[in-house]
Amino acid sequence: MLQSIRKAEDQAAADVAALMADVGRRARAAARRLATCSPQLKNDALLAGAAALRADSAAILAANALDVADAQARGTKGSFIDRLVLDPTRLEAIAVAVEEIAALADPVGRVLARWERPNGLRFERVATPLGVIGVIFESRPNVTADAGALCVKAGNAAILRCGSESLRTSGAIATALRQGLARAGLPEDSIQLVPTADRAAVGLMLAGLDGNVDVIVPRGGKSLVARVQSEARVPVFAHLEGICHVFVHAAADLDMARTIVLNAKLRRTGVCGSAETLLVDRACAETHLRPLVTALLDAGCAVRGDAATQAADPRVTPATEEDWRTEYLDAIIAVRVVDGLEDAIQHIETHGSHHTDSIVTADEAAAARFLAEVDSAIVLHNASTQFADGGEFGFGAEIGIATGRMHARGPVGVEQLTSFKYQVRGTGQTRP
Amino acid sequence: MLQSIRKAEDQAAADVAALMADVGRRARAAARRLATCSPQLKNDALLAGAAALRADSAAILAANALDVADAQARGTKGSFIDRLVLDPTRLEAIAVAVEEIAALADPVGRVLARWERPNGLRFERVATPLGVIGVIFESRPNVTADAGALCVKAGNAAILRCGSESLRTSGAIATALRQGLARAGLPEDSIQLVPTADRAAVGLMLAGLDGNVDVIVPRGGKSLVARVQSEARVPVFAHLEGICHVFVHAAADLDMARTIVLNAKLRRTGVCGSAETLLVDRACAETHLRPLVTALLDAGCAVRGDAATQAADPRVTPATEEDWRTEYLDAIIAVRVVDGLEDAIQHIETHGSHHTDSIVTADEAAAARFLAEVDSAIVLHNASTQFADGGEFGFGAEIGIATGRMHARGPVGVEQLTSFKYQVRGTGQTRP
Repeated sequence: MLQSIRKAEDQAAADVAALMADVGRRARAAARRLATCSPQLKNDALLAGAAALRADSAAILAANALDVADAQARGTKGSFIDRLVLDPTRLEAIAVAVEEIAALADPVGRVLARWERPNGLRFERVATPLGVIGVIFESRPNVTADAGALCVKAGNAAILRCGSESLRTSGAIATALRQGLARAGLPEDSIQLVPTADRAAVGLMLAGLDGNVDVIVPRGGKSLVARVQSEARVPVFAHLEGICHVFVHAAADLDMARTIVLNAKLRRTGVCGSAETLLVDRACAETHLRPLVTALLDAGCAVRGDAATQAADPRVTPATEEDWRTEYLDAIIAVRVVDGLEDAIQHIETHGSHHTDSIVTADEAAAARFLAEVDSAIVLHNASTQFADGGEFGFGAEIGIATGRMHARGPVGVEQLTSFKYQVRGTGQTRP
Repeated sequence: MLQSIRKAEDQAAADVAALMADVGRRARAAARRLATCSPQLKNDALLAGAAALRADSAAILAANALDVADAQARGTKGSFIDRLVLDPTRLEAIAVAVEEIAALADPVGRVLARWERPNGLRFERVATPLGVIGVIFESRPNVTADAGALCVKAGNAAILRCGSESLRTSGAIATALRQGLARAGLPEDSIQLVPTADRAAVGLMLAGLDGNVDVIVPRGGKSLVARVQSEARVPVFAHLEGICHVFVHAAADLDMARTIVLNAKLRRTGVCGSAETLLVDRACAETHLRPLVTALLDAGCAVRGDAATQAADPRVTPATEEDWRTEYLDAIIAVRVVDGLEDAIQHIETHGSHHTDSIVTADEAAAARFLAEVDSAIVLHNASTQFADGGEFGFGAEIGIATGRMHARGPVGVEQLTSFKYQVRGTGQTRP
């Protein structure tokens, strides 16, 4: 009995392995075709995909209704359901987003650098696609369209792995995009949705599918990203968390500081660019600390502070060491008084997550030092940390934000989904 | 007895782990200092290091003599000894190379892109150091100086792991460079030589020393690179092999083709950019094949060919399938007649190593297609594959050549040893 169960399990594992190996091979073949196709063809495919999303809307919404009903029957919590559910407005937004990606400048073939050597050789560093991108995400079905379209725009094949709860919805969306690819004469396998809910598929993607996955992009909560970062044998574009700081320097204008702090913390509290810690320079604490803390509290934000901050308002609760390292993703902020610029930088380097940090100051020299010395993907002067977003950078759309130091750092848009090669043109040169 | 041996082994392993953890922490601390120091300070350190190499020459050559004597006593083969041995001329060349690296443009702080958004935010993408670079190499002691100096020039700390055979020599060279760092007031630990021959140290480096190694660069033979690529948990800049092709297209000038092929294969046969396979277009085989093959044979190169090539000269021996995938690193070349451009590209994509490939042709359209479609780090038109070298690219010096698609591809010079951050300057902007 046990033996026959084991045999069945072995068979299932072998099936998933064979399935995923095939997915990888198909992706590589599609990527080779995409890598050299014209910008027009990719755009045709994306626009036809957007049209198919609209034409198939009844089928997509029906698939979504089934996913939602199942999730509700399992007692899934409301915020999850909210991310999962589609309606005609949300579906139209998904189609429009695909059209906007089609309208972006083509990132492939850009000449990134050009120079000539004394021997007459002419060098060009030219942008090329990365290859095959594996995207692992949770509930939001729009990621199927966004990530698929961004990958194709940059000439890459996408292997999309959604959460099991959205498999029907994501499948219907992927089908529409694949129709668009087929209509343009491009390989449908440029966008593949992993067709099984078997969790072993994720492990196989992280292992690289025999060299057929070039990079993994996890889109989801901290536990997903942590698993991907610890297990992946291929490069990962991701951030584990965004412990973002606003440092109000001695030379900060109070009104500007208040406006920026409120926006950085409260515009949206659940995004990675929301501020989690406010650092106030001791040199301006007497004038700035209480107004900033009061404004946050009055706006409905809980404040956890050091002794000086607690003294500023009775509603402040004590901050522990843990608070300096916590990504609340909620209307909670940790506040600390620091001894000037150096101490602020030291705090950020010790407790931050190298994501996004901002200084508010009228002192250009202090700002320049902060921007140079804070080792984060995005550093801002006199602006809100909530600008940590590919759209706000002008990238058009992003597949995520990365805090690694390699290749892509900060918002990952279509340009960051490319690699490069050197094209060298000569007239018969040989090397002495 | 067995238990006490195990205990001693456990203790030794714990010692190496503690030692390497300390090396990692020291490197990270040094990297943080280097990241924000002035270009002048780094150059001062390198020039003082070069001076120390000259001042310490007697000690370095004495250390080298001990390493060489040990290697000879172990019966090490001559080519290995040749790479290990230093003399005053070679040592002077090492010092000059360090000075040349100091003279390069500083790669840190370069503004890689600059733009403004409609809301007035000003964005700059600015080059930053990568952090800590682990270099694992075999016999050549000059790598200690070259790699250490390149890392420091780009603001990175270096952890250098040499082969046990060159530990004394590399140690003496590292000591000189560390003197230079100290004289400039920079942390000596910006360059650390792993002080143990214990092989476990390599495994620990590949695991990333608790996040204190950002990238690994292996310098050595295929078995070293293969081990590093398969075990490393951090990014690797490397190429496993250079199976480089020259494709002589139908529209190739015969004289140019002959000159390029002879240079690509025979200038130096042991470098990664030497050609291993010659592909000749069937459309010009009648006129071009025999002269090319004869020239190679007459120059002392063994030729392994397909049927058509064997028919061209009786000295040609048959090529097997294995030959198309072999990096000879010797005066041997595989020659095949292909059915035009498409077939040539197909051969290269199937059998190549994505390193360096060249087309010889007077047909611009064919060249453009080859440069676009061959998916290699370096693609050349009418030039020898032996130009695959950072110096020939004008990079000044290189730490190696990479065939991965991430971050650094092709020659890895000081610019490729940097990352970047976004610096965003505002006037109080908040996100709507």
